[in-house]
Amino acid sequence: MTRTSQTTLRLVMPQWQGGDLPAYRVGAKILEALLPDATGPVETVAIPVESDRSEQDGIKARAALLAQLDAAREAIAKHAPEAIMTVGGDCLVDLAPIAYLAEKYEDDMAVLWVDAHPDVMNKSLFSHAHAHVLAMLLGDGDADFTSVVKRPVDPKKVLYVGVNDMMDVEETYLADRGMSVIGPDALRANPQAVVDWLKASGATKVAVHFDLDVLNPVGRDYLLFNKPDAPEGAFEGVATGKLELEEIVSLLEGVAGELDMVGLAITEFLPWDMINLSRTLAELPMVGSENA
Amino acid sequence: MTRTSQTTLRLVMPQWQGGDLPAYRVGAKILEALLPDATGPVETVAIPVESDRSEQDGIKARAALLAQLDAAREAIAKHAPEAIMTVGGDCLVDLAPIAYLAEKYEDDMAVLWVDAHPDVMNKSLFSHAHAHVLAMLLGDGDADFTSVVKRPVDPKKVLYVGVNDMMDVEETYLADRGMSVIGPDALRANPQAVVDWLKASGATKVAVHFDLDVLNPVGRDYLLFNKPDAPEGAFEGVATGKLELEEIVSLLEGVAGELDMVGLAITEFLPWDMINLSRTLAELPMVGSENA
Repeated sequence: MTRTSQTTLRLVMPQWQGGDLPAYRVGAKILEALLPDATGPVETVAIPVESDRSEQDGIKARAALLAQLDAAREAIAKHAPEAIMTVGGDCLVDLAPIAYLAEKYEDDMAVLWVDAHPDVMNKSLFSHAHAHVLAMLLGDGDADFTSVVKRPVDPKKVLYVGVNDMMDVEETYLADRGMSVIGPDALRANPQAVVDWLKASGATKVAVHFDLDVLNPVGRDYLLFNKPDAPEGAFEGVATGKLELEEIVSLLEGVAGELDMVGLAITEFLPWDMINLSRTLAELPMVGSENA
Repeated sequence: MTRTSQTTLRLVMPQWQGGDLPAYRVGAKILEALLPDATGPVETVAIPVESDRSEQDGIKARAALLAQLDAAREAIAKHAPEAIMTVGGDCLVDLAPIAYLAEKYEDDMAVLWVDAHPDVMNKSLFSHAHAHVLAMLLGDGDADFTSVVKRPVDPKKVLYVGVNDMMDVEETYLADRGMSVIGPDALRANPQAVVDWLKASGATKVAVHFDLDVLNPVGRDYLLFNKPDAPEGAFEGVATGKLELEEIVSLLEGVAGELDMVGLAITEFLPWDMINLSRTLAELPMVGSENA
């Protein structure tokens, strides 16, 4: 499907508070630098280098996240785009874009969630709201956030790709709602299964959430799981990705060839070598020192 | 010395044609992403992804380079800044900023050229104009370029740091003009020598050119000399850097503590892992494909 670039908004959102990790901010800036120049409108949500990180009613940095959510919604409303390409930032950046697209396209849009994790936690389980985002889009979760979801996504219109090693609470959440998962092995056995599923859903449009942590962390400097100063065991029990980047590119090219892709968010980019270099460069005279 | 950030212009110039290597463009965008947010005005010179790369009268991409030089001068003139922080791009990005500063501060400004190479070639020696830039600032070289140098820099007000293994033609050029070099070993033996020299020059202000290739390439993915697809021997006979980043940061902090730093350009940033990743990401739907 083709659409004119003028109706696709690029939303740059260097949000870090949803993962409680300031490095997401510079990661998002680098990701935007890596992408080809946008040919349509671009909005960059201003994200402070520092903000109150404390937990408020179960969610870290609640006030900052809500202010940023409002700013993202305003940026989108200003353009009333047909499609949104979102540059994150932590996974929660996809709340405003998919909420907008779901309200616009209703049952004609499916959601393809390409991730190692299902992102269906809640504040009683984990205070980092980036792990809540898909649940919020289904209408579940903290009311301050779900209030922006005017038309919750139908769980039967969500397809997970790459999710593996779920926790019991996640398994139960998905099973209760009859949600579908194509894991890494199933994808490799039959990559066409994704397009088949999406077409069978009855939707002609699709919004894609591409969390880079769906990728195999071996040899990839730019994933959370390769955080250089993480204490041993910091990610124990957390699923890691099993797929290769070329597999995802090929998958999404195939999806875009068969459905109208109206959303794509790329999230959780943390190129540690560059992040470390940014800290050293910030010590130079004349460049300021505002990166975290 | 302190100055208000509002009088320091950040000039972002993702120029690649001076080195005839499109990867400089995304390198400059990434470098800008790595730096702390500017607190004063920012101007980004628009640099086309593609342009005529052919050699015209001895200089590759002459027309594009001249158009970009004009655009940089206009951006600077618009703000009439007291100081300029330049984000390159190939080394030639520093022509407009230092020409402006030299005209403004005259004999009260020295130039500190932190580089493995003296950048005093000319079009009969090499068609890549990024190797000509310091000579142009002294008033030597192609007249289309030197015409913007209204007040040539005095060669006796230039101090090289990190230059090593010069070619004969470079040695002669410097010797003929009585120019000073503090090589890597001399810097390590006496880092204070740089500030001493600058103070003895009689200048109270200094413009710094920091070409990242002054750094030791071992273990640094982001230098030209680590170009992954370079044919064997591609850089034979070309001097490589010997210094460490921490040494340069410490040097420049010391210089800024003793003189009024009115210029800093960081050039030749080529993070190959990221550049390669940008090529893969450009294949994704919805992101376009305009990066080189």
